[in-house]
Amino acid sequence: MNNVVLVGFMGSGKTTVGRALADQTRRSFIDLDEEIATDAGRSISEIFADEGEAGFRERETRGLERALRRDDAIIAAGGGAPLRDENWREMRSGNCVVALTAEPAELARRLNRPKGRPLLQPDIPSAIAALLPTRMARYLEADLVFRTDGKPAAEISRHIDARLPRGGLHRISIDVPGAAHEVTVGFHLANLAAQALRRLAPSRPIMVVSDSVAAGRHIDPLIEALKSAGISAGVHLVPAGEAAKELGALSTIYGALSDDGIDREGVLVSLGGGCVGDVAGFAAATWMRGIRYVQMPTTLLAMVDSSIGGKTAINLPAGKNLVGAVHQPVAIFSDLEYLETLADAEFRSALAEITKVALVADRSFVDWLSVNLVALLGRDKPAMLEAVRRAVAIKAGVVSRDPHETGERAILNYGHTVGHALERAAGFGRLRHGEAVAWGMEVAGRLSLSSGAGTPEAVRTQHALLQRAGLLANRPEVKRADLWQALRHDKKSQAGALRFVLLREIGRADYGCEVDPNLVWDTLAKVLSL
Amino acid sequence: MNNVVLVGFMGSGKTTVGRALADQTRRSFIDLDEEIATDAGRSISEIFADEGEAGFRERETRGLERALRRDDAIIAAGGGAPLRDENWREMRSGNCVVALTAEPAELARRLNRPKGRPLLQPDIPSAIAALLPTRMARYLEADLVFRTDGKPAAEISRHIDARLPRGGLHRISIDVPGAAHEVTVGFHLANLAAQALRRLAPSRPIMVVSDSVAAGRHIDPLIEALKSAGISAGVHLVPAGEAAKELGALSTIYGALSDDGIDREGVLVSLGGGCVGDVAGFAAATWMRGIRYVQMPTTLLAMVDSSIGGKTAINLPAGKNLVGAVHQPVAIFSDLEYLETLADAEFRSALAEITKVALVADRSFVDWLSVNLVALLGRDKPAMLEAVRRAVAIKAGVVSRDPHETGERAILNYGHTVGHALERAAGFGRLRHGEAVAWGMEVAGRLSLSSGAGTPEAVRTQHALLQRAGLLANRPEVKRADLWQALRHDKKSQAGALRFVLLREIGRADYGCEVDPNLVWDTLAKVLSL
Repeated sequence: MNNVVLVGFMGSGKTTVGRALADQTRRSFIDLDEEIATDAGRSISEIFADEGEAGFRERETRGLERALRRDDAIIAAGGGAPLRDENWREMRSGNCVVALTAEPAELARRLNRPKGRPLLQPDIPSAIAALLPTRMARYLEADLVFRTDGKPAAEISRHIDARLPRGGLHRISIDVPGAAHEVTVGFHLANLAAQALRRLAPSRPIMVVSDSVAAGRHIDPLIEALKSAGISAGVHLVPAGEAAKELGALSTIYGALSDDGIDREGVLVSLGGGCVGDVAGFAAATWMRGIRYVQMPTTLLAMVDSSIGGKTAINLPAGKNLVGAVHQPVAIFSDLEYLETLADAEFRSALAEITKVALVADRSFVDWLSVNLVALLGRDKPAMLEAVRRAVAIKAGVVSRDPHETGERAILNYGHTVGHALERAAGFGRLRHGEAVAWGMEVAGRLSLSSGAGTPEAVRTQHALLQRAGLLANRPEVKRADLWQALRHDKKSQAGALRFVLLREIGRADYGCEVDPNLVWDTLAKVLSL
Repeated sequence: MNNVVLVGFMGSGKTTVGRALADQTRRSFIDLDEEIATDAGRSISEIFADEGEAGFRERETRGLERALRRDDAIIAAGGGAPLRDENWREMRSGNCVVALTAEPAELARRLNRPKGRPLLQPDIPSAIAALLPTRMARYLEADLVFRTDGKPAAEISRHIDARLPRGGLHRISIDVPGAAHEVTVGFHLANLAAQALRRLAPSRPIMVVSDSVAAGRHIDPLIEALKSAGISAGVHLVPAGEAAKELGALSTIYGALSDDGIDREGVLVSLGGGCVGDVAGFAAATWMRGIRYVQMPTTLLAMVDSSIGGKTAINLPAGKNLVGAVHQPVAIFSDLEYLETLADAEFRSALAEITKVALVADRSFVDWLSVNLVALLGRDKPAMLEAVRRAVAIKAGVVSRDPHETGERAILNYGHTVGHALERAAGFGRLRHGEAVAWGMEVAGRLSLSSGAGTPEAVRTQHALLQRAGLLANRPEVKRADLWQALRHDKKSQAGALRFVLLREIGRADYGCEVDPNLVWDTLAKVLSL
């Protein structure tokens, strides 16, 4: 885990740069070809002669697997290793893949020294011309790509080191049919996002939508990274908070997209919390009937919840999220570095959603949270990485199976029927979303028990987690009548009946459960002391 | 063709009402069961006894097929006949299906007279209770549904006659994956639309969006039909013309949807030309992340072009259709009655699109147009029905195969590269869309020839049709520089190259063809005398 895997054509400098990078970062260096030769007790040329390329490739896959079992190493892979999909998947899994490139002429110059490279036949320039195009297509899918022409190895390795992610990297697939994409979770991801954008839109304009708060804190490194990847992106700011989601703010995004000449092949980047993500995503969903966009959530809540699943929306005077679209992003980069400056109350608020996904879908994550909550609240980096990875993976799985919320995805609304009603009854903006959801979960938990669905253990565990996260410190002050009316208004309580997501046991929930309104009323009164 | 097929439970009054309707409308009446018995030389009970229900059902399918070969007849089908999907398809194909219903108690009363009904076992009420639910589900899918309790047959038949479509009915399937739907083309369709809406949203609010012109002419019969089907729908008007597609007008639709309490299960109806359809469709695409909508186009252009394919959009000050979504309607009713009041220039304008789909995809339709253009321009009813049916069928096929315009659908842009540029260069609203497209087709046709793609016959045929439709009467007055700039601006001429749809021969076109800009320039100058 957390290795740096160097890929690139023969002669691109993997070994030289790899050694320099290892020295500089005090990490161990592994040359995969060398390891294969040592393991076989023969040179690479001899393996090719004895076993053919197929035999060598088998040895290479096994060698790569062994090498990747290490942690924090710098691994130089053979030029052909990334071509095999299995190898590529392994390299990317929990590691950062860095590609080195050089001009063909420079490669030929470097390869002119004999070193037992069996694929350089009949002569070096023809071999390069034959192999480079297919290989380059794969290399350019790497997390980071660096040119090594005309620069000393030490300089290149310093350049790479400054751009590497820090402290672990996870990728989670969201396999929505027709719109599969990936979430990258880690620290210091701006350069990875920039490289992804370069790949997505090699000759197309890009626009970053952000708000004044998120931009003030995080946009400089992103713009720097984009520049370093050769991208000059436009920036458009919307107001902070829910004001970002008004029709007027949306209209300014459209104006900026037009001014910047963003066409159907262009890409929009959303840098901010849930509000920015919602409006920027909706703009992308509707600009020229839908363009691609990348989510870069800057709050914990947006990372574990709103950035995942493609729900985009704006507000109307008549209500929140009344206008929207389901439009999946093409990539999500959740850079945990952004959480350093996040206000404590905002950080805690996200713990309601994290606790929620654990409770409805993953008992082992509930156990993990019970043990690691203190570390997480203390913003311990490995704890944050693990919590976000697991929360994202749960939501990604649910969304992949039910992208349009026709079934299972409804379990993610656990605690939200009452949570939304509390927010509405208190007056929007008065109650933090996380606290409202936490109280909503308390009500739903009690309802699960009293309607004979749940277990006392689940309700106790939930209460303890929410309590420890500080989400139950203040009982929301709302009027009974307002709350009841808000509950009736909620989109999920259609046609008279009140429907809830109920907790069956830790890690399992049912959706669409009808609950006797009297029971709801009594439980609200008890839990909220109304 | 154009038969009325009566379906309904035993005792619902198919024979009695059918005979009354036949008398009243001077059409022939066929009782399917009677025909089957005559054909077999035995009673229905004897067929059941000898051949079982399976044998009877086979005879029924064959009998239905024979009966439907007639034109303009009233056909009473057996109560079980619609259950077989094959029969149902045949009944609906080119005919109007009318269901009669009555309360179970009334059915039992009527059936108490022995008439050789083999399925009424062990006793009448139990047989009704066992058979009615499944059968009723199918009956309610009929075009029109009437209750026959407590009303004399003559009154019911007058009631039916007033609501029947007139002069032929066609249905065209649009098989977009995950969003299959149907276009109904005919005359006097408001009651069919109302019945469809009752089925789509039995207990949900419905809102009709229209503009002052379309509503002034056509909304009363629709509201009347909705009322008659037990639906009280809200009506919201947007400004006529392109003003309907401004963000402000969209915002008023959202307000009305909110005021009327339209939720995720609600349905929006668009009654109007292309502008109303575009903005209402976009409102439906985005209201609560997408609700269902029905297109009721009132112009010939909207019937053959914009109502088909799910493209919805609004305009921005920076350009037309910059914001939009692809969102398929759940049904389209193209009521040719609406064309009676359509201005001549608007009617002719649509002939550009009709000629276009014929030329790019269907040689036999081109032949048909060459022969029937005079009748069509004279708004001969059978000619209008045939022209719309064929144009819709072509577009439906293309859209079904390529709903998101990643390939083949692009052929529908034939003539539009230059057409759009002409509209833009002339100043929007100055040049009718159809004329702009006609001139665009003239340019594209010449380009097809001079780039070695097309045939002189195709270009001559196209010219003759457009000329006869009066679409080439006035050369558009635009400035060379403006046209060239507009052409460069067009979304379809990305990244420097000019791409065109070119005509290979009558009925076949290729999309994405790069054409030398100098050749384009010369052809523009020649065709448009610039």
